[in-house]
Amino acid sequence: MTMINLDCLFKPESVAVAGISPDPGKWSGGIWIKTLIQLGFAGRIYPVSKSMTEYEGLRVYPDIERVPDNIDLIVICIPARFTPQLMAQCVHKHVKFAQFFTAGFSEVDGHGAALEREVIEIAGRGGLRIVGPNCMGVYCPESRFSWRADFPPEPGVIAFSSQSGTSAVQMVRLAAARGLHFSKVISYGNGADLNEVDFLEYFLADDKSRVIAAYIEGVKDGRRLFQTLRRASQVKPVIVLKAGRSPAGARGALSHTGSMAGSSLVWESMIRQAGAISVGNFEELTDAALAFSCLSSVKGKGVALIGCGGGTGIIGADECEEVGLTLPSLPENAIQALSQFIPREGTGIHNPIDLPWGQTLQQFRETLAIIGSCPDISSLIVHYEVDIFWHIFGGRELEKMIEALISAARDCTKPVIAVLVTSGFPEAASAIQAQQHILLKAGIPVYPTVRRAAWVVSQVSQHRHFPRF
Amino acid sequence: MTMINLDCLFKPESVAVAGISPDPGKWSGGIWIKTLIQLGFAGRIYPVSKSMTEYEGLRVYPDIERVPDNIDLIVICIPARFTPQLMAQCVHKHVKFAQFFTAGFSEVDGHGAALEREVIEIAGRGGLRIVGPNCMGVYCPESRFSWRADFPPEPGVIAFSSQSGTSAVQMVRLAAARGLHFSKVISYGNGADLNEVDFLEYFLADDKSRVIAAYIEGVKDGRRLFQTLRRASQVKPVIVLKAGRSPAGARGALSHTGSMAGSSLVWESMIRQAGAISVGNFEELTDAALAFSCLSSVKGKGVALIGCGGGTGIIGADECEEVGLTLPSLPENAIQALSQFIPREGTGIHNPIDLPWGQTLQQFRETLAIIGSCPDISSLIVHYEVDIFWHIFGGRELEKMIEALISAARDCTKPVIAVLVTSGFPEAASAIQAQQHILLKAGIPVYPTVRRAAWVVSQVSQHRHFPRF
Repeated sequence: MTMINLDCLFKPESVAVAGISPDPGKWSGGIWIKTLIQLGFAGRIYPVSKSMTEYEGLRVYPDIERVPDNIDLIVICIPARFTPQLMAQCVHKHVKFAQFFTAGFSEVDGHGAALEREVIEIAGRGGLRIVGPNCMGVYCPESRFSWRADFPPEPGVIAFSSQSGTSAVQMVRLAAARGLHFSKVISYGNGADLNEVDFLEYFLADDKSRVIAAYIEGVKDGRRLFQTLRRASQVKPVIVLKAGRSPAGARGALSHTGSMAGSSLVWESMIRQAGAISVGNFEELTDAALAFSCLSSVKGKGVALIGCGGGTGIIGADECEEVGLTLPSLPENAIQALSQFIPREGTGIHNPIDLPWGQTLQQFRETLAIIGSCPDISSLIVHYEVDIFWHIFGGRELEKMIEALISAARDCTKPVIAVLVTSGFPEAASAIQAQQHILLKAGIPVYPTVRRAAWVVSQVSQHRHFPRF
Repeated sequence: MTMINLDCLFKPESVAVAGISPDPGKWSGGIWIKTLIQLGFAGRIYPVSKSMTEYEGLRVYPDIERVPDNIDLIVICIPARFTPQLMAQCVHKHVKFAQFFTAGFSEVDGHGAALEREVIEIAGRGGLRIVGPNCMGVYCPESRFSWRADFPPEPGVIAFSSQSGTSAVQMVRLAAARGLHFSKVISYGNGADLNEVDFLEYFLADDKSRVIAAYIEGVKDGRRLFQTLRRASQVKPVIVLKAGRSPAGARGALSHTGSMAGSSLVWESMIRQAGAISVGNFEELTDAALAFSCLSSVKGKGVALIGCGGGTGIIGADECEEVGLTLPSLPENAIQALSQFIPREGTGIHNPIDLPWGQTLQQFRETLAIIGSCPDISSLIVHYEVDIFWHIFGGRELEKMIEALISAARDCTKPVIAVLVTSGFPEAASAIQAQQHILLKAGIPVYPTVRRAAWVVSQVSQHRHFPRF
């Protein structure tokens, strides 16, 4: 199995777009052309349509064969019934890649599956590789290629393949809200030609991609996926969200991307055996991608849970132990050292560690230094009740506490994870976004609940060390 | 076991506050006095302190016995070592209730436990009932009594007892962000005298409280709690968050409120056997309180999952089946009816039902009417990808879709639950808060993910019908 070089797909130098409607209210190839222009795509763009001669200041060609250039990628938005003919022309023109926005193939009853086979067969004759049909295709910040102008322009370290286009949008936006960006994203729909395994192999070899994530509804070749997952998981963290695990989910997958989904248990054990990380929804996928892109390893199960507000600490302790972590008691010398400046009343200096509200920054840093040096502690989860803190001490004090955490984490040899707890008021959400950004720049991942932080620490601790490169 | 009448605790007509610091930076009884004045508390307020003669325009009395009035409730903020003497004075004065902000009792090592016993014993001689020590006490919107001026002034239907003060604050704020308010809240700390069972009995009889919630770290009398829970759960939904289920959590509970926490399995089965709802954190507690305050019953496990964006539907279907719900296939006549206006390409009209983006409002209402009339469907979960919807169609269209949902739900005999999915951007959070408010007023509870909506539907479907009164 040789890796297919997808450089010309993710970073095309020349792009044709077939199927443009003069009606701006209609979703058509015009979306891609406008988006590429808006994003400052550096390659050449060739609209293809019989119904106009100019579009957005670009010359429109009546068919692909008239375009006076080699084409790396064609975006196809014409009705399904015309696609075999277009494929033949593309093969003749030696187009390298085609991504099909066009739907109406194997995901619908009737002749769709036969039409899909026909298109793939024609393309195959000329070595033209297909993404889709029924997909949104490529988003690559580096090449400024996207189907949405509002996707973040900044590149990140996550490579993501998604069978669903809407899910790709959700994932990109969810991740962006957590400060996480992508090297390459591909929405590949029915996956009739190029599929999750091809993208996995390419991402594995891609030095811009440090973490690989995949949303899969169904696969054609389970054995090949398993082998590739196993090989990739030796080198980079690979996170897999398998949808359609339940009978109803599988039914949804069939009508969504024409996928045969397969049973829950088989999938779960296959993903784990391959050494990949199995997640159940996009929230978990984002949580895991964030952890694996920030933390290279967690060396043991012992965690210290630190923060103000006893209730969160106690429930958090329960949640840590529920995901397989332990909260070792602190050794006597650590308790003695902490007792010097943490009062006994209204707080707790065992583990979970319940700090007094209004500890000084120096005390907070010392607290973290003492706990960080305990041998049974492999990671530190520090939680802040942002709303309460904000109301008692104000926003500036919160910023100072975050600065103190960053400085303490810098001196600590163990991973530090921050939890910014809020009730969800918009005002607090803005403050959290700002602080999260600062923490992330310092290599500290941020979670909204102890439960989710504990889950990722457990996941990272179960996987091998992935060196950051 | 007779219920203790706590009317004078939650709605006191005269309040004394002992222990006021002239230093405004220090947390003291002054917080209560300022808060009561700010909230417009209608009762009489008597500051008690030897170190001043006037506070916030009120006359200060040197000791409680000099106050020329009967006292329903005294708020105690003096150091622990002086509290036995104060208790003796309160007994002499026939004070009805005392809530102790003061900490340093059974939650700390050393003499704390003995001091706590002494205080309770003195109070008991005079029939004076204690809340705490080590607690924040009462929040009751109806009487405008609170320890925080920023708690919502509007009353709601949830009664909540919380062993932890910080957790009470978190819960009130979490609930408020979801549009949910409280009839009565009590933070009771160590629970040395009045405890979770007394509050449960009172809330059960209280016609302002339709849903009861409890955050418990440890109990003194498990049998009495079980019996009361079982009795209460026949009449009102009772939601229990038991913290300290794990060894580390139990250790935290011991130093937090001096509670012996007990094992996870015992608690879980006790709560379920009693017919109460067991939850694992405040997120679940809020989710459940919202569902049980909006939905009087869900008659079966069959749910229809409806929305745009196939991925969310498929993962959501998996998540529904994982919590014990089923997604029955729609009957042939419903599929025929839906096929009249839902195109086959790019959507799915089985269950999960994947709607096309840009369905008209009339089509959306018809879709819900057809699905709502299917006999195997007992509830409808409708999800909106708010960010995406917003970007494609704008905020006004989202509002119209919400209006269409409300009008369709009004004509539907089955419970409708809305899921407003967002990536978490602050702009979307504001839009969601506004729409959530409108939906809630129409009796439709709102959740941020299908997983959480599915979990509450499963919980409500497992419990008996609670008539709304």
